[in-house]
Amino acid sequence: MIRVINTGGTFNKRYDPVNGSLFVPADDEAVEAAAASLRHGCEMKISGTIYKDSLEMDDADRDLLCEIVAKVEEKAIVVVHGTDTMDRSAKALDRWLGRSHDKRVVLTGAMVPFSIDPVEATANLAMAVTAVRFLEPGVYIAMHGLVLPYEKIRKNREVGIFEAVVP
Amino acid sequence: MIRVINTGGTFNKRYDPVNGSLFVPADDEAVEAAAASLRHGCEMKISGTIYKDSLEMDDADRDLLCEIVAKVEEKAIVVVHGTDTMDRSAKALDRWLGRSHDKRVVLTGAMVPFSIDPVEATANLAMAVTAVRFLEPGVYIAMHGLVLPYEKIRKNREVGIFEAVVP
Amino acid sequence: MIRVINTGGTFNKRYDPVNGSLFVPADDEAVEAAAASLRHGCEMKISGTIYKDSLEMDDADRDLLCEIVAKVEEKAIVVVHGTDTMDRSAKALDRWLGRSHDKRVVLTGAMVPFSIDPVEATANLAMAVTAVRFLEPGVYIAMHGLVLPYEKIRKNREVGIFEAVVP
Amino acid sequence: MIRVINTGGTFNKRYDPVNGSLFVPADDEAVEAAAASLRHGCEMKISGTIYKDSLEMDDADRDLLCEIVAKVEEKAIVVVHGTDTMDRSAKALDRWLGRSHDKRVVLTGAMVPFSIDPVEATANLAMAVTAVRFLEPGVYIAMHGLVLPYEKIRKNREVGIFEAVVP
Repeated sequence: MIRVINTGGTFNKRYDPVNGSLFVPADDEAVEAAAASLRHGCEMKISGTIYKDSLEMDDADRDLLCEIVAKVEEKAIVVVHGTDTMDRSAKALDRWLGRSHDKRVVLTGAMVPFSIDPVEATANLAMAVTAVRFLEPGVYIAMHGLVLPYEKIRKNREVGIFEAVVP
Repeated sequence: MIRVINTGGTFNKRYDPVNGSLFVPADDEAVEAAAASLRHGCEMKISGTIYKDSLEMDDADRDLLCEIVAKVEEKAIVVVHGTDTMDRSAKALDRWLGRSHDKRVVLTGAMVPFSIDPVEATANLAMAVTAVRFLEPGVYIAMHGLVLPYEKIRKNREVGIFEAVVP
Repeated sequence: MIRVINTGGTFNKRYDPVNGSLFVPADDEAVEAAAASLRHGCEMKISGTIYKDSLEMDDADRDLLCEIVAKVEEKAIVVVHGTDTMDRSAKALDRWLGRSHDKRVVLTGAMVPFSIDPVEATANLAMAVTAVRFLEPGVYIAMHGLVLPYEKIRKNREVGIFEAVVP
Repeated sequence: MIRVINTGGTFNKRYDPVNGSLFVPADDEAVEAAAASLRHGCEMKISGTIYKDSLEMDDADRDLLCEIVAKVEEKAIVVVHGTDTMDRSAKALDRWLGRSHDKRVVLTGAMVPFSIDPVEATANLAMAVTAVRFLEPGVYIAMHGLVLPYEKIRKNREVGIFEAVVP
């Protein structure tokens, strides 16, 4: 069983025609749609929380995310998260879980909302959901073809793409 | 380096407005589009061959596919394939490669053309491209959330979904 | 009040993943979706009948269409129709309605299913629904930017585009 | 010959993945795409100017638009415009053109960017491009199924839909 925890971020953004802007909805529609075909063969539980652009996440939000990840009974956990502070939440999760835990946590997200173009968001989620079955316990980020321990991957903000940290 | 070999199938189908039907084009447009964001971080070589609906593949086509898979230098190989005879090509590949080879081959495809709805096709390809990094040598099928040795997964033709073979 | 009568055709085609082909569904989903924003300001009644690829329409189908068009109380009527025999149905409607009637009938359709790419289908329907308010009584075809009496426009089958008949 | 003058607005908005927001691009891509199938049969010249969200248009922009509309040789003119100040530009055009001119000007736009969902934008543009052939000289707004003299239609800002002004 894989647990998918949706926290919001660009992956989920939808367009509001009345005020003419994108917003993070308080639902899991985009994640459900991206995961629909994967769920046929893969036991997956999708739930949501926080529902924020990750630039607006504060310490209380991150504590809440850590608590949920620590508490859920599943060992394989995918977190859908905004890309801007994905690294900070990954670090918080790593500290919260401590040494010798048995959870595989993979954070993922998207640079383009699923509602605007579903390809990148779906690819990232599918990569995360697949990798989480094979990884050793730890906290990882899966984005743009990479699946790496969180401290070995970073967002290149100039081009909007995640890349491996060159040591 | 991951090698993606596109052989056609529903994944690639496009609509021809002049004759009003879907056809398998002799190109890799759909696979390139589905893999676009994955390629940022993952060395991947995409090439194509055969370009057929898998119901029209014959023994010569399957021999050609086996030859290509055996010959390419990459050890991690994803084959995009029509779903109807994916199992037969997987079996042919398994026999051709024999015992003690060092290749991880993952076949995948789609029930809905990428050009009609990209979500399922992208999810399947991303799952295959991710799993192929972690698997032991062998021949696998990755479809609809499942990644299994080819003889442990089959297409349920009535509902159009791949499922695990219940022993 | 505008009456839209959906008879099927490519405009409506959807993909069936189980048998891998496009079919004309016995519903008005595509027409409803293409007309959704137009209906805010324009009284429009959408109904369907026949639901066939127009190559499969027979004389009985055409008689039925003529009867419906003659019988409905609206004077402004748009018929969504397959492109291959749109001209034959237009001619049948013209004969059925006879001289001195007071109906403006505009046939339209699409070369690409709304479900595959909504742009052409929506453009054709919007053109028909707009033109029908301004035209004199008669039978017209609205396709690909043209709105003309039915005998002055024809489908160029080689390129899949409607064009004006050069006298 | 119909002249389409694109001034920007929501119709044209595209998503920028790097800064995570929608912007009005300085090009006519969306208008060209929405008009593609209409152009087969309809002589149409598309050009662009200003390229702004209409809330950011100032008097100089409106003067420029009026000058262009007055100067182009075509008598049938469609203006793609942001919805928020479409009424102000229509009024400015009406005053600029004065009495007894021979131009039919139809303003249109969209509440949802063509790049997010092409249906409404395409429907509005097709309605404008069709109506402009049939109207008497004057300045009109074509939105959401309505084609009316500009002072008889207004944007209901609460629901994001244009509606007829009830006298």
